[in-house]
Amino acid sequence: MDIKQYMTSLGEKARQASRQLARADSNKKDMALNHIADGLLDSMPQLLAENAKDLKAGEERGLDAALLDRLALNEERIQGMAEGLRQIAALPDPIGAITDLNYRPSGIQVGKMRVPLGVIGIIYESRPNVTADAAALCLKSGNAAILRGGSEAQFSNQAIAFCIREGLEKAGLSADVVQVVETTDRDAVGELITMQKYVDVIVPRGGKGLIERISGNARVPVIKHLNGICHVYIDDKADKQKAIDIAFNAKTHRYGVCNAMETLLVAENIAAEVLPTLAEQYQNEGVELRCCAASKAILNGRDGLVDATEEDWDTEYLAPVLSIKVVGNMDQAIDHITTFSSGHTEAIVTEDYTRSRRFLAEVDSSSVMVNASTRFADGFEYGLGAEIGISTDKIHARGPVGLEGLTSQKFIVLGDGHIRQ
Amino acid sequence: MDIKQYMTSLGEKARQASRQLARADSNKKDMALNHIADGLLDSMPQLLAENAKDLKAGEERGLDAALLDRLALNEERIQGMAEGLRQIAALPDPIGAITDLNYRPSGIQVGKMRVPLGVIGIIYESRPNVTADAAALCLKSGNAAILRGGSEAQFSNQAIAFCIREGLEKAGLSADVVQVVETTDRDAVGELITMQKYVDVIVPRGGKGLIERISGNARVPVIKHLNGICHVYIDDKADKQKAIDIAFNAKTHRYGVCNAMETLLVAENIAAEVLPTLAEQYQNEGVELRCCAASKAILNGRDGLVDATEEDWDTEYLAPVLSIKVVGNMDQAIDHITTFSSGHTEAIVTEDYTRSRRFLAEVDSSSVMVNASTRFADGFEYGLGAEIGISTDKIHARGPVGLEGLTSQKFIVLGDGHIRQ
Repeated sequence: MDIKQYMTSLGEKARQASRQLARADSNKKDMALNHIADGLLDSMPQLLAENAKDLKAGEERGLDAALLDRLALNEERIQGMAEGLRQIAALPDPIGAITDLNYRPSGIQVGKMRVPLGVIGIIYESRPNVTADAAALCLKSGNAAILRGGSEAQFSNQAIAFCIREGLEKAGLSADVVQVVETTDRDAVGELITMQKYVDVIVPRGGKGLIERISGNARVPVIKHLNGICHVYIDDKADKQKAIDIAFNAKTHRYGVCNAMETLLVAENIAAEVLPTLAEQYQNEGVELRCCAASKAILNGRDGLVDATEEDWDTEYLAPVLSIKVVGNMDQAIDHITTFSSGHTEAIVTEDYTRSRRFLAEVDSSSVMVNASTRFADGFEYGLGAEIGISTDKIHARGPVGLEGLTSQKFIVLGDGHIRQ
Repeated sequence: MDIKQYMTSLGEKARQASRQLARADSNKKDMALNHIADGLLDSMPQLLAENAKDLKAGEERGLDAALLDRLALNEERIQGMAEGLRQIAALPDPIGAITDLNYRPSGIQVGKMRVPLGVIGIIYESRPNVTADAAALCLKSGNAAILRGGSEAQFSNQAIAFCIREGLEKAGLSADVVQVVETTDRDAVGELITMQKYVDVIVPRGGKGLIERISGNARVPVIKHLNGICHVYIDDKADKQKAIDIAFNAKTHRYGVCNAMETLLVAENIAAEVLPTLAEQYQNEGVELRCCAASKAILNGRDGLVDATEEDWDTEYLAPVLSIKVVGNMDQAIDHITTFSSGHTEAIVTEDYTRSRRFLAEVDSSSVMVNASTRFADGFEYGLGAEIGISTDKIHARGPVGLEGLTSQKFIVLGDGHIRQ
């Protein structure tokens, strides 16, 4: 198979389907989502059988246990996919919304209409449920999708793709609205990310390596999520109990997630009052503490403390490891954040009104919080209904990306024979 | 001079200055804009003297009259620049605006805060007034700017840059907020568009060639304006007088602009009633008409008609030339637009309610109009106050790009010790 020709044909079909979909009314899109959900449940035996092939091949290739777990489908996970589809069907349709329709001095009426981007390419790794999630978000936002999953989930993804095609057709939509790339050839990715004529945006979902590789080579715009080196700063005007609760929750609620805190900054005037309790709690949970000299001095006598190195400030652990640094004041905390943050999420704990406002204004991250755990940085928690990822980019979409992030706005002008004078 | 080192130092200074500027209050930014306007007026003799050097060099290099005209400054143009700066100072400050601040079921309050993008690189051609305009838009929107003008305007641009630096410093802002590249070495552009660490977005302003070259090589995101192949479709349900007025205005109000109509589409049922009058008016203005077979037949007997070729549908004339095509109905018009439009601006003239709604929904261009001239597609006409350009991209900013297009939004979360359950 000629990969370039194959991908071009997917692109042409997607572009064509995107035009039909842009016109489809909300009911039709929601019907398709619900049909796909039904289809996944009805096809449970087939999905499990195809998934078993992937798992067997994965074991033979020696994939590690964590990867095999991400790859595995079971009844509960398939029900979860179907439930996710129904939730997306229940969200309001963003497409067609007209805002700011105002008269101008010339007499024309100018407003903005929300429209799909067109064709979205999604490149992802092992978890097959992404196939259903990503398809649903694109469909609901009126975009055709070309999905390229990991080769290790190839059988599972194709089985899910079959349900998606059937659901689309049952609702009277083109099956080309969602196409899953059938080849596992890596060149297909290279084509997908450079087909500017057919693809409007690429959303890579996966580890930092995948995302850097894709954005380094893409000619199509990429909405990307790099890493999450999130900070909590405990100000000396913090309420101590809130500070301890938030700093503990931000680190230990879940470790392998991008919105977990990786570095705790503590004002020197409060450090001695909060760090001992926090260190006790962290170590009880098995969190390794990597301390600056000042924090180590305060925790003097504790076992198992590690000296933090410069590299620690720049590391996303995604693990039960925390770096701790004592800073002189909020300005030093903001300086540290400006230098080392990945621009994902930062929080301050303080009761000081002026500092809370300054922190919100001056910290340049996709989410900035006062007296709340960084773990809230999430599309569901923010009320977006669902998310395709969390953007650490600044243009187009920033932070959790829901349906709106997959759309654009065009200007509409209503006149009554108006001409420019 | 080592270009890479030089551009890196501009980038570092811009990044630093952007942090100061992001915190600056509206008054300070507006004061700087007004100081710069004063400075331009006070420096009129120096600006004219420096501009004369550019003009002399341009004549010696044999630049054509149109280019020399664009390059020339005079009292009126300098007053125009100053006036533009004061108008931008008078616009509302977009930065810091908080919207959609709502409570979530978890108890946290989530909203969005409008923030600058950071550092914007602007690459433009001969007109020196762009130096002042672009600097003003970036400054007002809280972004540091690195400006790279054409080598033919080098003396003028540096003289304007001097006024900008003075104005910034008088307002207590860093002079590095706006830096004008001092070298005319082309490699400087190559550096600017690949310095992802220091530049957040590139806005090229100039001809299609410049923009294609830049977006082909950029690693920094580009907000780009390619060409404007704009269409007016006269539906058979159109009011004839409105149709004639709009089609005439859209072509002849100005020729060399991106929002001028290049192709007129006419429904066959109305063609015989509007085309003869329109052809008469166009030819009286000296517009060359390139006709499809059907429109030629209707205009049978007129002198000077040219047969349209396939290439005409794909051409942005920017000149007194118009291609005319008779179509069977609105669907055929939309098909033609979908195939040949550059996605800039399209208009329908119709009194039919359902068709007006369908045209608005189905035509995928940055501006879609009903019963209004395409010439209205413009930041000032739309009420944006000023524009840095008209984006034909779909992501981030689409259509006229004003201050808001040079900003982003971050999420803010306000809590009271909230942790994730």
